[in-house]
Amino acid sequence: MTILYQIPGDISAGPLGSGELLRRLGLLRGWAAAGTTVEIADTPGGPFSIESAAEEAMCVAPTLDALARRTSQPDAVIVGCFGDPGLAALRETLDCPVIGPFEASMHLGAQLGNRVGVVTVVDGVIPVLDRLARAMGETLNYAGAVAVNVNVLDLRAHSATLADTIIDAGRALVRERRADVLVLGCMSMAFLGMAEAIGDRCGVPILNPARVALKTAEAMAALGVRQSRRTYPRPAKPLRLGVKEHV
Amino acid sequence: MTILYQIPGDISAGPLGSGELLRRLGLLRGWAAAGTTVEIADTPGGPFSIESAAEEAMCVAPTLDALARRTSQPDAVIVGCFGDPGLAALRETLDCPVIGPFEASMHLGAQLGNRVGVVTVVDGVIPVLDRLARAMGETLNYAGAVAVNVNVLDLRAHSATLADTIIDAGRALVRERRADVLVLGCMSMAFLGMAEAIGDRCGVPILNPARVALKTAEAMAALGVRQSRRTYPRPAKPLRLGVKEHV
Amino acid sequence: MTILYQIPGDISAGPLGSGELLRRLGLLRGWAAAGTTVEIADTPGGPFSIESAAEEAMCVAPTLDALARRTSQPDAVIVGCFGDPGLAALRETLDCPVIGPFEASMHLGAQLGNRVGVVTVVDGVIPVLDRLARAMGETLNYAGAVAVNVNVLDLRAHSATLADTIIDAGRALVRERRADVLVLGCMSMAFLGMAEAIGDRCGVPILNPARVALKTAEAMAALGVRQSRRTYPRPAKPLRLGVKEHV
Amino acid sequence: MTILYQIPGDISAGPLGSGELLRRLGLLRGWAAAGTTVEIADTPGGPFSIESAAEEAMCVAPTLDALARRTSQPDAVIVGCFGDPGLAALRETLDCPVIGPFEASMHLGAQLGNRVGVVTVVDGVIPVLDRLARAMGETLNYAGAVAVNVNVLDLRAHSATLADTIIDAGRALVRERRADVLVLGCMSMAFLGMAEAIGDRCGVPILNPARVALKTAEAMAALGVRQSRRTYPRPAKPLRLGVKEHV
Amino acid sequence: MTILYQIPGDISAGPLGSGELLRRLGLLRGWAAAGTTVEIADTPGGPFSIESAAEEAMCVAPTLDALARRTSQPDAVIVGCFGDPGLAALRETLDCPVIGPFEASMHLGAQLGNRVGVVTVVDGVIPVLDRLARAMGETLNYAGAVAVNVNVLDLRAHSATLADTIIDAGRALVRERRADVLVLGCMSMAFLGMAEAIGDRCGVPILNPARVALKTAEAMAALGVRQSRRTYPRPAKPLRLGVKEHV
Amino acid sequence: MTILYQIPGDISAGPLGSGELLRRLGLLRGWAAAGTTVEIADTPGGPFSIESAAEEAMCVAPTLDALARRTSQPDAVIVGCFGDPGLAALRETLDCPVIGPFEASMHLGAQLGNRVGVVTVVDGVIPVLDRLARAMGETLNYAGAVAVNVNVLDLRAHSATLADTIIDAGRALVRERRADVLVLGCMSMAFLGMAEAIGDRCGVPILNPARVALKTAEAMAALGVRQSRRTYPRPAKPLRLGVKEHV
Repeated sequence: MTILYQIPGDISAGPLGSGELLRRLGLLRGWAAAGTTVEIADTPGGPFSIESAAEEAMCVAPTLDALARRTSQPDAVIVGCFGDPGLAALRETLDCPVIGPFEASMHLGAQLGNRVGVVTVVDGVIPVLDRLARAMGETLNYAGAVAVNVNVLDLRAHSATLADTIIDAGRALVRERRADVLVLGCMSMAFLGMAEAIGDRCGVPILNPARVALKTAEAMAALGVRQSRRTYPRPAKPLRLGVKEHV
Repeated sequence: MTILYQIPGDISAGPLGSGELLRRLGLLRGWAAAGTTVEIADTPGGPFSIESAAEEAMCVAPTLDALARRTSQPDAVIVGCFGDPGLAALRETLDCPVIGPFEASMHLGAQLGNRVGVVTVVDGVIPVLDRLARAMGETLNYAGAVAVNVNVLDLRAHSATLADTIIDAGRALVRERRADVLVLGCMSMAFLGMAEAIGDRCGVPILNPARVALKTAEAMAALGVRQSRRTYPRPAKPLRLGVKEHV
Repeated sequence: MTILYQIPGDISAGPLGSGELLRRLGLLRGWAAAGTTVEIADTPGGPFSIESAAEEAMCVAPTLDALARRTSQPDAVIVGCFGDPGLAALRETLDCPVIGPFEASMHLGAQLGNRVGVVTVVDGVIPVLDRLARAMGETLNYAGAVAVNVNVLDLRAHSATLADTIIDAGRALVRERRADVLVLGCMSMAFLGMAEAIGDRCGVPILNPARVALKTAEAMAALGVRQSRRTYPRPAKPLRLGVKEHV
Repeated sequence: MTILYQIPGDISAGPLGSGELLRRLGLLRGWAAAGTTVEIADTPGGPFSIESAAEEAMCVAPTLDALARRTSQPDAVIVGCFGDPGLAALRETLDCPVIGPFEASMHLGAQLGNRVGVVTVVDGVIPVLDRLARAMGETLNYAGAVAVNVNVLDLRAHSATLADTIIDAGRALVRERRADVLVLGCMSMAFLGMAEAIGDRCGVPILNPARVALKTAEAMAALGVRQSRRTYPRPAKPLRLGVKEHV
Repeated sequence: MTILYQIPGDISAGPLGSGELLRRLGLLRGWAAAGTTVEIADTPGGPFSIESAAEEAMCVAPTLDALARRTSQPDAVIVGCFGDPGLAALRETLDCPVIGPFEASMHLGAQLGNRVGVVTVVDGVIPVLDRLARAMGETLNYAGAVAVNVNVLDLRAHSATLADTIIDAGRALVRERRADVLVLGCMSMAFLGMAEAIGDRCGVPILNPARVALKTAEAMAALGVRQSRRTYPRPAKPLRLGVKEHV
Repeated sequence: MTILYQIPGDISAGPLGSGELLRRLGLLRGWAAAGTTVEIADTPGGPFSIESAAEEAMCVAPTLDALARRTSQPDAVIVGCFGDPGLAALRETLDCPVIGPFEASMHLGAQLGNRVGVVTVVDGVIPVLDRLARAMGETLNYAGAVAVNVNVLDLRAHSATLADTIIDAGRALVRERRADVLVLGCMSMAFLGMAEAIGDRCGVPILNPARVALKTAEAMAALGVRQSRRTYPRPAKPLRLGVKEHV
């Protein structure tokens, strides 16, 4: 089975560069089950990083465009951003299951404890996640999010202290918001190995959303299921992909 | 005060053409209060019509781009599509209030009756509205949506029978889903004068979302309020607007 | 259009006297749109101020009575008390839209941020507002209320420090209850200009419920909509208004 | 222990007359436990019957007035109307527990089955009950209400067929709204012995709200508990009871 | 009427011994109404105390077994453990009403204030109660639980300080979780007279769940109601009671 | 990795016999990923089939007992009954993740569509599932359950017509309860290959809960996560397993 990890941002064109793509692919392959082929792609024209509702919205059209240009179709697609941008749009347009890391982590985390909290990058992402949790119907299982207030592109520069900062935030979620399970709320945190570094130092399980999304993708592909066409019908007319609006 | 009605689709480039823009502007001006200047714009590169989650997502980047190119800023912006695409993104990036017709209609309708139902164009839009109602926190006040199953671009061709079709759908919402108030769930329906044509033939108030959005925009501009920066903070870095991804 | 601001208390007979009515009318007229005529009335036999569930309930019969005695009907009626006393009763008996300041502020505030908090006068009002927010179906959008614990009739005597007290309460709502938007939870606070005095000193928008109610009334009257008769049917038999029970 | 059954309407002055009071008292005494003294009173100046939000609101002031005139205080008070009018107001002003028949029936019914439905008199009462169920926090346990559409004062004239009409409505609630338990949603129905006449003919338990309220009152009085002063604080200033507004 | 208080644990075989059964019976008889006969039984093979989900589950089979061996049937059965173990199972298999102390206390407490909090024994019980409150549909009325972290079998040894410890926990619930009413969340606390010892020292009513369950049982028996067979149908085949699995 | 599929019923002692165990094991092994070892066990002393709340409760003690007797511990345990009996109890007592088929199917299904409906065996199971869905916090995502009203032990005898019966029930869920995704609500249905036989004949995805549970177990084991000890703490004292109550 082939799983495509589609990053909706334009990592290759940004400060991290295409080497970061290969680094992440290596990690994903290490996490994959026997028999799973992982591919990775980023999205030309997408944001360099995604940490606002505006960037979440802006990355969808180029992602749909990038996916439409592929010649081979994977067995499942993971949206490589924790805010699950474009999840419904991709489900409408693709014939394979599409996995959102936040959605997948909430649903797996809710099987580990009553309330799932999120440690994310910046305060600005929190209201986006709060409304997503509502839209998912997960208000009772969602303990809320707290931010470490380090921008995505600065995470590496803070890597020496990042785990401790996340632990402080996670413990606050446990103590003040009664979280029973934690999720790292940013894929860049996930690929820096933070969940593994933290282990049980918050006293509760801490989920790596990249790995949860990968396992969910493998599960869906193995089950041979995909999204309901009642919730995610195919668009009735062709999408205007790749339109150059300002010539 | 100046209210901008920003259509996130590319009406000028589509079958309706730019004459439709002027026609809608005329209606909006007729509905506006004394002292309100209404402007209208559509979105180059946007979809010809918006009737899927994919099209809702794809219109946001060009809308942000179109708004960024304006030289004068209005006192309020209305997102001219019933699915409120890009509402959070626009609120983050603009300094004036931004109004979504669905959100505004739900909140006004909930002041007229216990349960608000929506008559929309096609079945595919219903799950999008259902999840928006959840995200708004309006599950108790939302009676659900039913579709007349006429595509947006075909509405005019069905105009002779459209009112009766909507009335049947609306009555079904009242009878089976216990709706107390109805909203037309498509701006093209709204600009065809359907709410006014139907009047009280469904036995409950029926809201024209274009007019509700306009009155809400006037109210917000008059109050001098705008979105909370806690929910809609300004993005921390410049957006990659107008990027040509495929050169 | 004519908007009636009906105070359900008996201000003229109380310590503030009828001068206060005229003062409030002046403010309302200053806030009104061009073309709006505002009238004001208070309610003989109503409470001097309304700051308990008992007073909320007691004011309704005299309000219905006062409204029944009017010879001309307005285009919209605002219930001039933040607890929205008698809102359903008035909607049943009147043929024009009836606006409740709390309800209108919650619904407008929810379009400005995810969670709306209320700064009100006394602790005793909080459980009343809490249950109203439930009845409105707004539990997700409602961040709760805190009180400054100054009685309504003492607000003026505290006017020198009132803004600072409200700011402290508002900031606590933001910090501890995660409010993104604030509403002044008392019409006397509203008419003391507190929202305007505070501005953005709480870091989030703060709504003046009198002005929000007025703009909502103008919007409804302009739209030509009124309450659904399914939710608010006309009472089947005449009300026993003005009965003297203890002669 | 003494339980006061306080009818918020003016039955003595209405078509049923004071004989109806004595008849109901007799039934209540028959239902009471050994050691319980039941008293009954109606409310001068209240409505003849209560079947709208307006009448619910109008009865509260005269009820507070009637209760304030009593010289001896009971151990518990039952509000003798299914819509629980003035429940919060009475709880604030009295030092004994106050029981609402709808509230008590919902809470007892929810211990008998997952979803509780209500068969009530007229359609106009349904939205009032719907919002009360929300305010109680009982939206999951509440299956909704249906009406037999017989006015309260006409119930006796329909007594020959009333049971069958209620059974039809109750079965519809079971079949279409998945009610597991039924409650008679009108005290006049309750005192006509309808629950007892129907027995298990709807296939689910059917509760007589007068008897449930009485048993709840006995339970609360025996427990020595009364309302929390945090939810129902005593009003800070004297109520303006018995004011003659139009002399 | 006969009420059976069935303890699902094996108190007689545990450290408290059968004398504790008699002591509790004495208290229950003191709390019972005139005309109520209380019987008590514990459950051979059940846990010595119940303070985990595992012990809640393990006690049900022996409880069903113990009840099946009885020769006379009571008019109501109280499950003598605050976590309401086996409530649905007993309702299915018995023909009389079955009362759970947590469920009964939540439903009575919600008639005394907006939010009901629980002071329980150990942290491990809290997630069990949290999920029960969800299953009851009481998430809005439930303020959460806090534990004094004394094991059930050690409560007596801490009796000198227990009341003060509970008061501290209760005040924290009021202050931090906005509880308006408290319930003792353990039957052993209830039978140590803690609610009575504490009285109004937390500033809100505090309910003894044993007494609430008893009064609810008396009410249901007096009303002649029992569980709906739609929610709690009789099992279609005989239960395998008393099977010796490892001979 | 080793996954234990623990059937909480006593299949070997019942009419299906131990051959059924081996048959199911064969299917599970066919569904398992490369590298997964599946083991199967049933529960001596458990019910022959589980189709009531009573049987759900009665199977837990023998299941805990059976698991305690194992000498080797698996990497994950699946509770082999759709009602997830004893899920919390097993999570408390085991150190590996424990998967409930209903819970896992709801959480996976909610990633495929907005509303998940269940086709189950008998009406008596529906209220149990309804309350589980509440306890999971999944009321918005749960479309309800319908039953084919064939007892578990009779399913095989109906195998010729079973698929058609399930399809009728499933279509009713889609049409009347707006289900977007279906789950077979009984493990015996699952092991009769019903989901695979039905395919897309209901127009929406239909999940086999045995396969979903297996994939979820593989995912959790691969992730190295297990239940939070805050939600599922280890019981503080040894469980009284294998007690012979009636010697």
